[in-house]
Parts: sequence; structure tokens; C-alpha cells
Amino acid sequence: MKRMFGVALTGLLVAGAGSAVADEGMWTLDHLPTKQMQLRYGFTPSQQWTDLVQHAALRLAEGCSGSFVSANGLVMTNHHCANSCLSQLSKGHEDYMSNGYIALKQEDEPKCPDVELNQLESITDVTTQVNAATTGKSGAERVKAERAIDSKLEQSCVNGDAKTWRCDVITLYNGGRYALYKYRRYQDVRLVFAPEQSIAFFGGDPDNFNFPRYDLDVAFFRAYVDNKPANTPQFFKFSAQGPKAGDLTFVIGNPGSTQRGIPWTQLAAMRDYRLVPFYGFLSELRGLLWQYGHAGAEQTKEAQDLRFGLENTIKVFNGWLQTLADENFVEQKKKQDASLREWMAATPERRTKYGDPWADLEHAQQRSKDLRARYDMLEGGAGFAGRFAQLFDYARTLVRVAAERGKPDGERLPQFREANLPAVQQTVESDVPVYPRYEQTMLSWGLEKFRQTLGADDPTVHEVLGKQSPDDLAQHLVSGTKLADPAVRKQLWDGGEKAIEASNDPMIALARQIDPESRKIRKAYEDEVTAPTDKADETIAKARFDHEGMSSYPDATFTLRLSYGKVVGWNENGAPVPPFTHFDGLYKRATGADPFKLPDSWVRAQSALDLSTPMNFVTDNDIIGGNSGSAVIDREGHAVGLIFDGNIHSLGGDFVYDGSNNRAVAVDTAALVEAVRKVYNLPRLADELTQGHL
Amino acid sequence: MKRMFGVALTGLLVAGAGSAVADEGMWTLDHLPTKQMQLRYGFTPSQQWTDLVQHAALRLAEGCSGSFVSANGLVMTNHHCANSCLSQLSKGHEDYMSNGYIALKQEDEPKCPDVELNQLESITDVTTQVNAATTGKSGAERVKAERAIDSKLEQSCVNGDAKTWRCDVITLYNGGRYALYKYRRYQDVRLVFAPEQSIAFFGGDPDNFNFPRYDLDVAFFRAYVDNKPANTPQFFKFSAQGPKAGDLTFVIGNPGSTQRGIPWTQLAAMRDYRLVPFYGFLSELRGLLWQYGHAGAEQTKEAQDLRFGLENTIKVFNGWLQTLADENFVEQKKKQDASLREWMAATPERRTKYGDPWADLEHAQQRSKDLRARYDMLEGGAGFAGRFAQLFDYARTLVRVAAERGKPDGERLPQFREANLPAVQQTVESDVPVYPRYEQTMLSWGLEKFRQTLGADDPTVHEVLGKQSPDDLAQHLVSGTKLADPAVRKQLWDGGEKAIEASNDPMIALARQIDPESRKIRKAYEDEVTAPTDKADETIAKARFDHEGMSSYPDATFTLRLSYGKVVGWNENGAPVPPFTHFDGLYKRATGADPFKLPDSWVRAQSALDLSTPMNFVTDNDIIGGNSGSAVIDREGHAVGLIFDGNIHSLGGDFVYDGSNNRAVAVDTAALVEAVRKVYNLPRLADELTQGHL
Repeated sequence: MKRMFGVALTGLLVAGAGSAVADEGMWTLDHLPTKQMQLRYGFTPSQQWTDLVQHAALRLAEGCSGSFVSANGLVMTNHHCANSCLSQLSKGHEDYMSNGYIALKQEDEPKCPDVELNQLESITDVTTQVNAATTGKSGAERVKAERAIDSKLEQSCVNGDAKTWRCDVITLYNGGRYALYKYRRYQDVRLVFAPEQSIAFFGGDPDNFNFPRYDLDVAFFRAYVDNKPANTPQFFKFSAQGPKAGDLTFVIGNPGSTQRGIPWTQLAAMRDYRLVPFYGFLSELRGLLWQYGHAGAEQTKEAQDLRFGLENTIKVFNGWLQTLADENFVEQKKKQDASLREWMAATPERRTKYGDPWADLEHAQQRSKDLRARYDMLEGGAGFAGRFAQLFDYARTLVRVAAERGKPDGERLPQFREANLPAVQQTVESDVPVYPRYEQTMLSWGLEKFRQTLGADDPTVHEVLGKQSPDDLAQHLVSGTKLADPAVRKQLWDGGEKAIEASNDPMIALARQIDPESRKIRKAYEDEVTAPTDKADETIAKARFDHEGMSSYPDATFTLRLSYGKVVGWNENGAPVPPFTHFDGLYKRATGADPFKLPDSWVRAQSALDLSTPMNFVTDNDIIGGNSGSAVIDREGHAVGLIFDGNIHSLGGDFVYDGSNNRAVAVDTAALVEAVRKVYNLPRLADELTQGHL
Repeated sequence: MKRMFGVALTGLLVAGAGSAVADEGMWTLDHLPTKQMQLRYGFTPSQQWTDLVQHAALRLAEGCSGSFVSANGLVMTNHHCANSCLSQLSKGHEDYMSNGYIALKQEDEPKCPDVELNQLESITDVTTQVNAATTGKSGAERVKAERAIDSKLEQSCVNGDAKTWRCDVITLYNGGRYALYKYRRYQDVRLVFAPEQSIAFFGGDPDNFNFPRYDLDVAFFRAYVDNKPANTPQFFKFSAQGPKAGDLTFVIGNPGSTQRGIPWTQLAAMRDYRLVPFYGFLSELRGLLWQYGHAGAEQTKEAQDLRFGLENTIKVFNGWLQTLADENFVEQKKKQDASLREWMAATPERRTKYGDPWADLEHAQQRSKDLRARYDMLEGGAGFAGRFAQLFDYARTLVRVAAERGKPDGERLPQFREANLPAVQQTVESDVPVYPRYEQTMLSWGLEKFRQTLGADDPTVHEVLGKQSPDDLAQHLVSGTKLADPAVRKQLWDGGEKAIEASNDPMIALARQIDPESRKIRKAYEDEVTAPTDKADETIAKARFDHEGMSSYPDATFTLRLSYGKVVGWNENGAPVPPFTHFDGLYKRATGADPFKLPDSWVRAQSALDLSTPMNFVTDNDIIGGNSGSAVIDREGHAVGLIFDGNIHSLGGDFVYDGSNNRAVAVDTAALVEAVRKVYNLPRLADELTQGHL
């Protein structure tokens, strides 16, 4: 499963890919490769087709894709993109994550506490404005200037209505272009249907990133406006047949990030100083959660969301590390860099124009190596279970929002700009369960890593731990804090700086205590690593454009992209892997033991099902993490599939696309219709899918 | 702490270091750098001095060093080298690992269940014999020939008395030389004294590989012969003063392994395809054990031995990965390789003589990449918690010894050659505690990794798991097996093949079941990876000798080595780190919370102690894992310290020695005498140390 996990290698996401070959490319809608599409598939998209694609496609703000599949706001995405909602809605003995959820009638559709959908409204080129603001600036000055211009552009775009609109300035082509993306927000998103975890993720971690595959990795949401189903005339009509082998397919979604355009020296530093240590960190956490979950059913449930995310991420890391260790790939990258570098230095004019961004890059990487561990622990929050649990994240957000709201928009940390506040507020005030035992475990482990990483003699470590052990401090914090209560959080949000200052909540106190050091390391990192890296990358990207012409598509940036391709298998160790699996194969693969255990619903339904129904299929579309939940559509703009994974060879796609064996994995729409109707006996939903409206 | 952990990167241990500079080098006693020692320190060892060093020094067969420090068999080593003994002797409410052990009189000295000491008796050059047996052979044929000649040489050396002698054929200088090492065995080894874990490992994982340091990482054993203290006239007299800054120091011990002489291409493959995945694997296990230990005091105890080992190994891996990512180091290695390669190909004669071992190496590495995961899971036993728990290891050993004993010695797996059987038997029959809960947890996790690594569709995975989950199978195996009982193991050992065949013990059945596949992958790995790698390395090493002359010292091989150096600090971020710490610093560093909590004995003794007593010190001796427990001696052959660690910069020492900041860390003998007398009130032991006899 390729859901974006919150571990993006921030600061390394730069763009500018080489010229596209085969079915390569994640294209922006305003710059589609129409010639290639026509040449290879005899297809040229009409304006109407492109409009449909843009408005039917959705971004899940937390890190997935989705799409409207009826005129009444019905949204199709992956089960694994609905994990948080399913966990959060489960209370007491209900376990929607494991058992699935079926809304028999519309009134049964419960609100997901913090799902936000973004529908792309427009893209505006703002390259001139951004360049004007940053040209000639570097370090802290550049960070400040960028923040100010981004805020200005975004505020004017949102135009005072942040509940409806969300605007983001996006860096494309590695600084070759900047664009303002304007989205319509949907924050009232309700759950319509999700199958059991055991069929959504049949085969579990062993089958993840593998094929043949037999997963019904789907969930249906519904967008509401004013407490009524949203009116969504632009949607993908549902094909009850699915695609055929060889069919032209498009994937429309939000690939998270790729690093195809950045120099090898940056990739090498990423591998050695961030990826490998992080791989160890996450592996350790994975082992901890394994054991935590083995203590009982409650603990299994508490840990499962993070555990799935970790297993997935670790598999991705394995794929990345393999590609980054591949000698052919490395040599090719090095050669490309060397040739560009040579070209840049070949004349006095070019030397004057470009300077030596390569040396700047090297220096920035050295600084990153020095600063990164402290950054991760403090500002990244890893030392306090940030991103792995909730309580510290709440405290940090509340402390920061109170301090940031008082500043001019352009001087705030980007997360707290006016345009972003509704999403932040939704997260802070949402009624999601908090598990004290889990929180304490995560925090205790985090604090131990904090001391281990910075060293017992570090003054901040001394200040935080004093003479307490990580276990004792975690116990003190979790038992003492009231932040598990959404009402308390709301009070603090509303109370602002005064309330934060007056609070004697120990978790708030911790967040207050470390905030100055956190901000200090963040600033150092931004000024000495991010800004010079951005600047150097921009210079290198511009030189590349000067030398090779505008390259074909920008690296992925979790914004809307279209990829084209076809339904096609591949060869594995000399043997062909056919592109489709079918229901009969699912029943053959089932063992009765987790993760190959079928839910009862499927066992019961076997005789009623058409076992020749195609279940999953693969295409050579170029996708990446973040594309989870993307629709696969055909020439007519009909949904024929639902992306939920890539094969194991697709993992290197972050760095390079190899059309010979890089495959996207999708659920067939034929399987979805058959299952909704015959396994789950939900004619209401099946009819809406096939008819296109309620 | 630098104890060898059972994760040696077997098959990559090759030798042939460059010319030694500064205080670099781990020298064999028959090839000491007397000229350099004389030049740098005005010291030339006499024959008497060398004899003393050879016979006073000891190897702990499990992976540490030690030395005789009295004429009555008293042995000094590290606390962390006595961990297994301390855990194994602890029963019921006794916890010698945490609380230490004090034998007030000789009758209180209990036998360690499976400690074996080896005292080097002689080294014989057997290069001619080995070369004669293997020349012109490759692949399986070479494996067989090597095994046969090794066995022949070892058997003739042991000469029928394997209880007294142990003989090993050692590859030195990467096949440039082979030597037969003959050791006297001591298997009756008893515990005399160990301090509390909290002072032995004060500062815990945070301080590990750091300095300033305040550890009393010591344990004293006594070797017995015929139930009486061994007569050991060759021992290191104990200096009650310890060394001074600038003093010449020698470390005599058994450095485990270094990879200073192998080509970069091999190091790169090691990093990418073994070190990094293994780092993830061990990190995951570390997290699991962290959580396991948090369930209660019993669980903490069950997990602690492995946990310490893991934390240590992971820190070592971090150091390795840093060195292997260091561009200067990599470029230097590549340059060396390229220049040698060029020289080898420069004339037709050389091309004929050497062939192309570089291509062979590359091919062997490719095969390693293909075979390694399966090898690790099956033959390495990782899929069954091998090396991380006990029950499967017992079963595997019993199944194999039964099969191997019937074969001619030269055709057996090396572990089961007649010369090695006493040590194997001691391990199998020793009365060490087995914790079923721990065993089941490890096994369940191992089986999950097994399925994950080989894939759910692997026939061996199918055969082992059937329709059971890893949890179920682990539960079935651990609750069903009787192998926790040493008497049952002894019966099976004595009963041989018949008993194994007849056994319906489920763990024996599992070991039997996977043995054919295990042996198959082992053979494939040996024939297609180990043998061609050895052959290629040997050719490259010979070419290097031809080109550069015999290089100075062989890579470490867990055999006796002498390193020379001096007591000296270093500079860290521009500030000097002084070479000594003292008792007063220990009391200042103590916080009262683990791992900076002093044991009661030390709190009570504070006023009685001379707080200016030096506690730990650093030297620039060139040491590595396996050197733990080595004596630091002076020109007179007196013990002045006890090696227990290296600083963080020493970790790269596996690949390159950097005299500017690579430091060995030792306990001062002055601290040992003061502590034994005034903290532990043990005049019996203090007097034996200062007088040299009981």
C-alpha cells in the first residue's frame, strides 16, 4: 500500500526529471504530453475530459488520493486511507477497522473526525512573483522572504474564506516554476462503507508490494455540505466491467514525492545520513509495537494504525535502499551530474551566471549531517513520540498556535498561516480516542531515544529529564495531562497565549519548555540547510533547463498529476506475471490463519459470487506513495479501477522509473460492484455506483 | 563495550592491512614490529617478556579476552564478558547480574556453566600444507579440500586429547599464510567476584563508547584443574598504581575481526546487502526487547543479556556505517584497489598469473545477494530465533551432532569436528535457565520474519507453518518441547542418530524438518560465495604481497595479538579530552536514576574511598571487538589496566585505524584494588591481586 506516511524527507524534495520515455511521467494537467499520448495510444484529451479529471479527483489532506464516483458526493478511496477514521470511530466493543462498517441508510453515515478532502479549483503560475521576492537572497533572509511571499499569495487567494478554500504555493521543476494551487475544502466527510481489514489487506505485510494480489482495499466516504450530500456533477462513472489487458489507463491522483531530478551527491547524503538511521529508528519502533500488540486485543487495536504504517514504510525504505545501492543507477546519475557540471563550468559566462552551487550543496549537506539528529528529536518531535502518539503533538500545536496567531501572517511558521488554521483546528479539536497506556509507552521510548541521541550530557536533555528516568517522566506526563479531553484542548485553543502561559498541565509545560530550543534548531536547519539547498538546487535546475531545454514533468509534490499507461503484466525471473487476479484465486490462497484468513462474509458469499470476476490488476502507470486511492480511468473518463499499491519493483520509482517491471496495483471496479452487491448486500451503494447518483 | 557479539560477518573476514603508521597494528607474537617499537618507545621485548605475555593472556571461547593475574589461576576479564555466567547462575530471587557476586571464601566459587578459557600453547606455520591441498581447486571441491586438510591438521595437533587441547587452523594475511593455533583448554571456570551491573556498566547505553567514563567493568574468574585452583606461574603482576599519562602500554588479547585489507567492492556489498538489512533486523529486535522488558522485573531479567548485546552491536553498526559512508575513506580505498588492479593487468605474465579475481569477486557478491536472506533465515537460524534464544539452537545442534558424528572427521561441518565437540557438548548439557515466555516470544517473532523474508509462497515456509500462524506454531513448539531440561538434552546427545530419529519432541522435529533445506542453502553459499570469495581474496592478497612486499600485520581473526601505544587523550571539537577519570567524577555524575544510579555499596563507601583514585583511562592502542577483557600491561609486564571499550571514533577501526582520535578505554588497576578492598571489603581478593598468589 502506498499511502504517504508522515516521514517525507523534507528538504530533499526537489524536482526536475529527465526526459520521459515509455509510459513514464506524473504530469500536471496544464502541461500534458499530448503528442506522446497521441503517438503511443492515439488519444488526445479534450478540454471537457481534462475538466472532468480535475474536478472528480480529490486529495485527502492527510496523505492519500480519492475521487468522486457519484453526483451526490460519494468518494472512493482505499481502506488503508480510511484507517484513522475507522480507528477513531471505533469505541468500546465496536471495531470498524477490523470488522468494517456498513451504512445501511444515509442517516447511518457517521462523520470522520479529521478527514479533509481537497478538490483542485485552479492552478496559477506565480513564478515571477516568487522570483522577484527571493532573487539575490540567501540563508535566513531567503527563508523569511519566501515565507512572506507565500503567505501573501495564499492569503489573497483564500480571500478571507479559509473554511471553503485552501491555497498552497508549490515549488515545481525544482524552483524552475512556482504555482499557486487553489482547492475547495470539504471538512464534513462521512463514512459510507468499509470492508473488513482482513479482506482489504488480505495477505498482510507478506503480500504488501507483491503480486498476484487479492485485496479489496476500498472505502467509500461521502462529502457533505450544510449537512446534505454535496452536489458533485463532475464524477467518474463507474464501469461494472473493469478494464481488459492492453487497455489504455490513466491514473489521476496526488503522488507524494519523488527525487528523480536531484543530484547524486544529495541522494547519497540522504541515504547515508537520513534514510539509514531512520530505517533503524523505525525498525526499532516496529519491534516495540509488535510486542506491544501481543499483550492483548486492546493493545493490538491501539497499536495497529501505526504498525501498518511502519511496516509499509519500512518496505518502501528497503526498496529505496536497493535502488540507491544499484551500481548502474548510481553510475548513470553520477555521469549525468558530471556532464552538467562540466557544461556549467565550460565558459566564463556560465561560471559567472551559475557560480558553484555544487560546493554550496556539499556544504549544506555537511551542516545537515551536524544538525539533523537534534532537529529530528526536538523539532521533529521524535524525542517526545511526536507523530507516533497524540498528546505531545496536541501540546506542541497548542503552544505554537497561541504564539503564532499574534504574528503577521507572513512571519508565521507555515503550518500556522491563516489559510492552514482550519485544518489544524480540526485536528486539535476532533474527538479521537487517546489511549493512555499507548501514549505512555511511546513517550517513554521517545524520551529514551532523546537522551540516547543527544547524549546524557546535553543541556536540553538535562533540562527535560532532570534526575528522572524516561519511564518516570512519561508516567508523570501522561497521568498528569488533561489533553486527552477535546474540551480542554478547545479551551486552550480559544484561550490563546494567556491560557497557555497560565496552564499547569505537565504536557503543555513540556512543550513550552522545549519550544525555544526547538525553534532554534529549526531556524538553524532552515537557514543553513534548507535555504542553501533550495537555492543550489534551483540554480542547478535552471542550468539544466538552459542546457537541455525544459524537462518533461516535475518531480512529484503531492499535487494532482495524471499518468498514462496500460494494463500489462511483466516478467519475473523469466516467467510472465499475468495482469489480472480473480475471485477464485482468492479462495485458493486463503488458509484460515491471519493474514490469509477470509472474513466470514466472504466465506458465506462464496457460492453466490461469480468466481471468474477479476479482483486486482496491474498497469505500467507511473505512480508513487500518495497515489493510494487514486482512480484508474479509461478513455471515456470512466472509473475502471482503484490504485492501492505498486509491485516491489515500483519502489525504486522514487528515484527512477523502469517501465519493464514497475507496476501499479489496482482493485478492479468489477470486483467492487460484485462485492458490494453480493458479499455485503448493499444494493443502495451498488446502485449508486452503477447509476451515478443516490 | 566491545565484546564480540555473535554477528560476525562471516565470509567477509579477510586480511592484509596496509603498512602500519603511528601506533597502529594488532600484531601476532611471532611477528612483532620490534624496530618500530624500539624507534618509537625505546623498547624491545625480550623472549621472557613475550613468553609471559603469551601464557598469561587468555581467550574466552565465547568471544572475549582475559588474563591470569595470580599464580593460582585467578582470571581478570570484563563484567560484560561474564554476563552469561552471571545470568545462568542466578536462580529464584538471586540476581547476580544486577547485584554482583562475592565469593568470601574459595568454597563459595561456583562453576560457570559454559565458560571455556583458551591459553595459547603454540603457533605453527601450515601454509605449505594448506596450499598443497587447495591449489587449483574451486567451488565445492575447494570447500571439501580445505575442510579435510584443516581437520587433518587439527586432529593430529589435538592428538586424541580434546579435553586438554584445542587446535584451530587460522587464515592469516588473507590466505597469504595459514597457521595452526594450539590452545590449552580450561573448562572448569568458577566465579570469584563481580560487582553490580550498575557500576560495571554505569552510564549504560548512553555512555557506551563514550568518554569520560566511570565503569568498573570487571569480573574475576578462577581456572580449576582437578577441582583445585590451576597452577599458573605465568601471570601479570598487578600494579596497584596503574599507569601515568604518556606511559607506554601494551594490550594483549584477541581482537575479533577487522576488514582493513579487503577491496572496496567487497566492503560496499557488505554495507548495502548485509550490514544495512541486518541493522534493521537487530533494531526491530531491540524495540521488541525494550517493550518485553517493560512488562516486569522478571521479563527485564530474561531479556537483559540479549538487550545489552544488541544495543552494543547497533552502536557498532552505526560507527561502521559512518566510516563506510565517509567519502575520503571510500575514495582512498577505491584508489588503492584501482592501482593494484592496474598493476596486476600491466603485463601478460601478471595477467596469466593472477587471472581476473575482481570479476570473480563481483560474481560471488551477486550470488551472495541472491542467497543471503535464505541463508540467514534457515542456516543462520534467524527464522527460528537461533542465537537469540536457546531451544531451537539446542535442537539444531542435537540433530546435527547425531548426523555428523558418524562421518569421517574431515567431512564434518567444522563445528562438529572431533576437536570442537567438547565445547559443543558443554554448551548443550550445561544447566542454564530457559525462560519459556521469552523463548515463545522470540520464536514467534522469528517465524514471522521467516515468512516475511522468504515470502508466504515459499515451499519451505509452507512446509514449516502449514496453516498455522507464527504465534500458534511458537506456542505449540515451546509448550511441547522437553529440551529445556538438560537431562533430556544429554539423553539425546548420548542417544545419537537413533534417539533423534525416534524423538517426537516438536522442536527436534522442526530441526529435523528444515535440516535438508538448511544444509542445501549452506552448501550453495559455501560453494558459490565463500569459496570463490576466499580464492579471489587470496589471489588479490598474493598480488599485493608481490607488488608491495609482505604487509605489516594481518587483519584480526580472534587470535592472540599485541598492540602497543600510550596513555593519551584526544581533541574533541577543538577541546582536549584528558586521558583519566577519577572516583570523584563518578560521584558527581551519579543522578540516582538508572543508568546513572550508583549501587548502595558505592554510596556507602564514598567516605572511605580515596576520591582521587584514577578510575578509567584511554590509550591509543589499536583494539577492536573481542579485545574486551584484555589486560593493559606495561614494559615490565605488569597489569596496569583492563580494556572494556573503545571511544566512538574507534568504531571505524574495523576498516581503518586513525591514531588521532581512535582510543581504547580501560579500567585502571588502581581503581580495581581500591574498590575490591574498600567498596566490597574483600581482602582475600585484594591481597591475591597485590601479592600474586592465594
